[in-house]
Order: sequence, then structure tokens, then C-alpha cells
Amino acid sequence: MYGRPHLAGFECKEDTTILLDKNENPFRLPPSLREQIRQVVSGIDLNRYPDPEARALKQVLSEMTGISWREIVVGNGGDEILELLFTAFTDKGQKVLTLSPTFTQYPELCRRHKVEWVPVPLRFEEKRIVFDQERFLEAVSSCSPALVLLDTPNNPTGIRIPNDFLSEFSERFKGVFVVDEAYGEFARETFLECFRNRTLPERLCILKTLSKAWGMAGLRIGYAACSPSVAERVESVRDPYNVGLLPQEIAKIVLKYGEWMESRVLSIRYLRDQLVKGINRITGWRAFESESNFVLVRSPIPISRVRERMEEACIQLKYLTLEQPGDWFRVSVGREEELGMFMNLLQELN
Amino acid sequence: MYGRPHLAGFECKEDTTILLDKNENPFRLPPSLREQIRQVVSGIDLNRYPDPEARALKQVLSEMTGISWREIVVGNGGDEILELLFTAFTDKGQKVLTLSPTFTQYPELCRRHKVEWVPVPLRFEEKRIVFDQERFLEAVSSCSPALVLLDTPNNPTGIRIPNDFLSEFSERFKGVFVVDEAYGEFARETFLECFRNRTLPERLCILKTLSKAWGMAGLRIGYAACSPSVAERVESVRDPYNVGLLPQEIAKIVLKYGEWMESRVLSIRYLRDQLVKGINRITGWRAFESESNFVLVRSPIPISRVRERMEEACIQLKYLTLEQPGDWFRVSVGREEELGMFMNLLQELN
Repeated sequence: MYGRPHLAGFECKEDTTILLDKNENPFRLPPSLREQIRQVVSGIDLNRYPDPEARALKQVLSEMTGISWREIVVGNGGDEILELLFTAFTDKGQKVLTLSPTFTQYPELCRRHKVEWVPVPLRFEEKRIVFDQERFLEAVSSCSPALVLLDTPNNPTGIRIPNDFLSEFSERFKGVFVVDEAYGEFARETFLECFRNRTLPERLCILKTLSKAWGMAGLRIGYAACSPSVAERVESVRDPYNVGLLPQEIAKIVLKYGEWMESRVLSIRYLRDQLVKGINRITGWRAFESESNFVLVRSPIPISRVRERMEEACIQLKYLTLEQPGDWFRVSVGREEELGMFMNLLQELN
Repeated sequence: MYGRPHLAGFECKEDTTILLDKNENPFRLPPSLREQIRQVVSGIDLNRYPDPEARALKQVLSEMTGISWREIVVGNGGDEILELLFTAFTDKGQKVLTLSPTFTQYPELCRRHKVEWVPVPLRFEEKRIVFDQERFLEAVSSCSPALVLLDTPNNPTGIRIPNDFLSEFSERFKGVFVVDEAYGEFARETFLECFRNRTLPERLCILKTLSKAWGMAGLRIGYAACSPSVAERVESVRDPYNVGLLPQEIAKIVLKYGEWMESRVLSIRYLRDQLVKGINRITGWRAFESESNFVLVRSPIPISRVRERMEEACIQLKYLTLEQPGDWFRVSVGREEELGMFMNLLQELN
């Protein structure tokens, strides 16, 4: 039962495998932060329940974002907040509208909650992927969804929905509007920034996570900035002890390292843009501009050949089946040396 | 927003408050275990997602319980597994049957999932509380619940349902049967033990937690031993990263300290039985025999007076509104000196 079953047949050890499949932050924590975490863990009484309101953590998040702590919900990863939003705001048989392609957890949640998933396709052009505002607005008008769920930057394309559009839509839409900015820090602007020291409009929820830019995928902390009425409904369907003592305490420390996080984000953006250019220089391959920490790639050769070669070299990518012709994968922006090995393989494959 | 709002008006500091309200284990971790936890935390890469299958932790749980890892589900506390069971096995408008009184989270989950809660009362006699098997079986026959949820030992009464009855019922009942043994270690026998090296019957799920006897309320780890078909359904509605890296790693260490846990359980049982005797020696007060780490008490004086005096002394209890006449509270079995202070107050109150 151990090991990496999807690599069966190949001898990849955990510490030599290059993980470019889950959009994790490839940088480890700085030593001073590790030391602070060790100290907190030493002093903590794990026999006691955590604060069910996560008040101290909300206070830190509030200071960072300029959103009142009353409008902040904290979850066991962004995943849990998505689950709570579905529980609070959808009923069996209703419709939930998202982009397509999109985060695979959205259709999964639709299935789980027995709601109808309405995917609105992004337009794939030769060199770019476009969010078609009219098409989207028509789809919303014609199906009256209970929930609209937009990930921006979008996973797996990396494109961003402009703030102007999000702002206008959030004023007009009558259902609950969830903007998932899990990858927001890697983009040129975020929607969350617009609400610093302002109350969020009714029925809006902006989702954030510590799993990506903050490099805390293993910790499981997500949070949402919600209008007070949305926050109240979400809180009413939340388990009281959904966020453990250690995640609450460690997150409070990590969030003090904003400059460290930002410097990592700058490195990732730089490496990402280099990666896109590098791939596009190889004849036949197409990498799309991204505002996130991953890049969508169309391969000129069958994806099975890419996969075989990458797995032999112990490089993990995310292979995708899209509603588009062609062979696709998504590559996360790893460290420079990891991306170098990936690029070498790609060049050999050609 | 800080502090303990329910103690407003009283000056209770966190480190002098006596917490006898949440059925926590009052003992801190032994130093060697703390040291091992520190070492694990130092080496962990929190920028990586946890194992979505919690395979290594399931292996440890499997060795401990004698249940195959394929029949084990791990959750963010037992609370999350309860939530998953409701999602997997109930539909709006169906019925869920429990004891009454019972764990307050059960009616809460019924509300959240829009199912009808059918509470079957325990029989309160002068000196004991009785589980009426016939009454229970009649209620099941007459309402055909989708889910039956029995907590044993029951919260807040501390009574246990005999294994023979549970065994027979699990063979006969056609819906999903959940036996919540969160407090099982404090009882004379557990139902889980019956399934060592055996497959669980269809539609049975036995729920366990590390929050009580194992003293890990802050960690958020619960697990369930389920028949393979129940396990599969629960896994299908679970978020992939529901249990973080730290809880997985720390739980694996803690579970090696079985002897430490058992010695703590013996202390708690001893203190509990002394507590029951002590309370019953005071004229007018009634404490009921318990197989758990808490004791249900009927007060001869108005509960508001008890509450006022306890809060002045910074002792927290759980005050209850039951379907029974009288004034009730539940007191968790704390450390000897904590229970001594509690008993002194009770004697003064009389």
C-alpha cells in the first residue's frame, strides 16, 4: 500500500521525484520560520480543543487584508470552504455555473451535492485563451444558477478575469457569486484588493488559500472574505472544530512572513514567464501565457509519449483531457533546476 | 473579540480556568512524545500536500485495531466523518434516529442536511438511566430511518449499549448503522473489539476519535471502521486533502504510546468513580454511574446558582437542558486537584 502507485513500474524515490503536478510552492520554509513553528509546537496543549471561532487567526487575516474579521471564514483548506458554500447555498437539482476547463473539484462538488453543473467554455485561440464575457453572461441569464463559481486565475489555463468585469457582475447577479483566488498572488491584480477597508457586496465570496503562494499546502488553511450575510450562512453549516490547533497557530506565524512570500512569488513569476518562452521556442509546442504558478501546454506529440518519458525521469505533470482537440498537460512552476530538467526532456522529445 | 465571551464579567485567565465542560483529556503529553513531535515538525515539508489516502496512518490504525486498512476512513476529527456519513447516506426529508439525550452535533447535522431527527428517549429512573431496547426497536420499525446513530457510551449520560444488542441490531437493520465510540476507551468493553481480524457486517460503521482517551482534541483526527461498501461511499464524498500533513504525522507517533494512553484512562476511570461517589454523598445531589470520562449530575438547587458560583471560581461545566424535570449539568473528569476544587464548591453550595 505504500509508494506512488501511479508510477508503478518505475523506480522513483520520494526525495528525487520532481513534483510539477499539484501547483505546490516549490520553496521550503526559511529556517527562522521553522524555528518559530518548532517553539509553538513545543508549548501547545494538544489535549485541548482549538478555538472554534479561530478569533486570533481571523484577526491576523483581517489586518493583512483590510477585511473585517466578521467577514472572514476560515476552513480546513479552501476545499472545505467550497464544500460549505455548496451546503449553504445549493439544493438538489439547482444549477452551478463555472468556467470550462476549471478546477476539477467544482464538478466533483456538483456531483456530490446533486446539483447540475453548467460549464461555460473558455475560447481557445491559436496563441491565447479568452474569457468570453458575452457568452458567460448569456449562460447566466439562461440558466439562473444558484451559485456562480469563477476561478481567477483559472486552473488550468492561467488566465485572469478582469476586476472590472467581476465588480460589475457581483453588483448585478442575484445568486451567490464565488470568486476563487487561490492563485491570486501570482496575478497582476486581485479582486480581493478592491475591498480593503470596505464591506463586501451582498452575496459575494472571495476564496483564498495558504496552500499556493504561502507554500502551506500541507497545513490545510483556506479562508474566504464574504459579505456578512454569506459569512453567517457559511458559519451556520460549519463543524465547530474544523480548523485544528496547529494550523491556527502556525498560520498566525506564517502570515507574518509576507515579504518572504512576496519574494518567492516574484521568483515564481519570473520562472513561469521564462518557462512559457522556452517551451514556445521549441517547434510545435505551445505554452499559454499564465498569471498563475502553472502553465498549460499543448503537445505536438501524443501525450502517452510525453508521459512515458517524464515518468521514466521521475517528473510528475498533470495530464489533461480537455474539450479541445490536441494533447494537453499542465506543468507547475518548480525550482529553476527542476524546470531545467523538464525543459531538457521536452527538447529531447521533439 | 478575544477572551472567553461566556465568562464576560468574570476575570478568568486562560491558564487558571478549570475546563470541565468539553470532555477533554486533562493530561498533557509526556516529554518524550513532545520531543518526537518536535522532530517530525522540523523535518516536514509543509509546502507539499498531504497523502490524500493517509496510507501510512491507516496502516498504523489497522495494526492497532485489527481492522483492514481498506475498511478504515480517516477524517478531520470524528465530526467530519459524521458529516460525510450524512452526505453519503441521507437525503432531504429522510429520517435519522438517535438516542435522547445525545451528542448535540447529531441534531445539528440533521438540521444541516434537512433530514428529520427522530430522538428515542432513554429512561431516567431515580438512580440510573436505562436504554430501553424494546422502545428503541419499535421506533426503528415504525419510522424506517436511513441512518441510526448510537453513541455508546452515550453523551451526556455515560451509559453504554451492550455489545450483544449492537451485534444483533447490526445484523438485522436494513439502513446504515453508525456506532459512535468516541468515548469507548473509558468503558468496560467496546464494540470495535468484536471485529479484530474480521470484516465488518454490511452497512455498519464504528466511529472513533483521538480527541478523548488519546488526548488529541486539538489535532483533529477521527477514524471509522466501516464495512467495505460503507467505506467506499464515504470516501467518494470526502475532500482529497481533508487530513493535513501534521495531523497525519503526529497521529502516527501518538498511536505508539498506547500504554501511556491506557494508564491515563485508568486514572480517569478511577477519578470518575470517586467523583460519582463523592457527589452522591452530598444530600440532594445525584450523579449517575458513567462508563465515560464525564458524569451527568442532577442538582437540587437552581442551575443558575450552580453556574454563577462555578463561573466565579473559573470552573467551566456543561449546563444542559434535558427533556427531564430538574436541573442538570455534565462535568468532565479533570485532574484530581481540579475535581477537588469542584467538589469543594459543590459542598459549599449545599
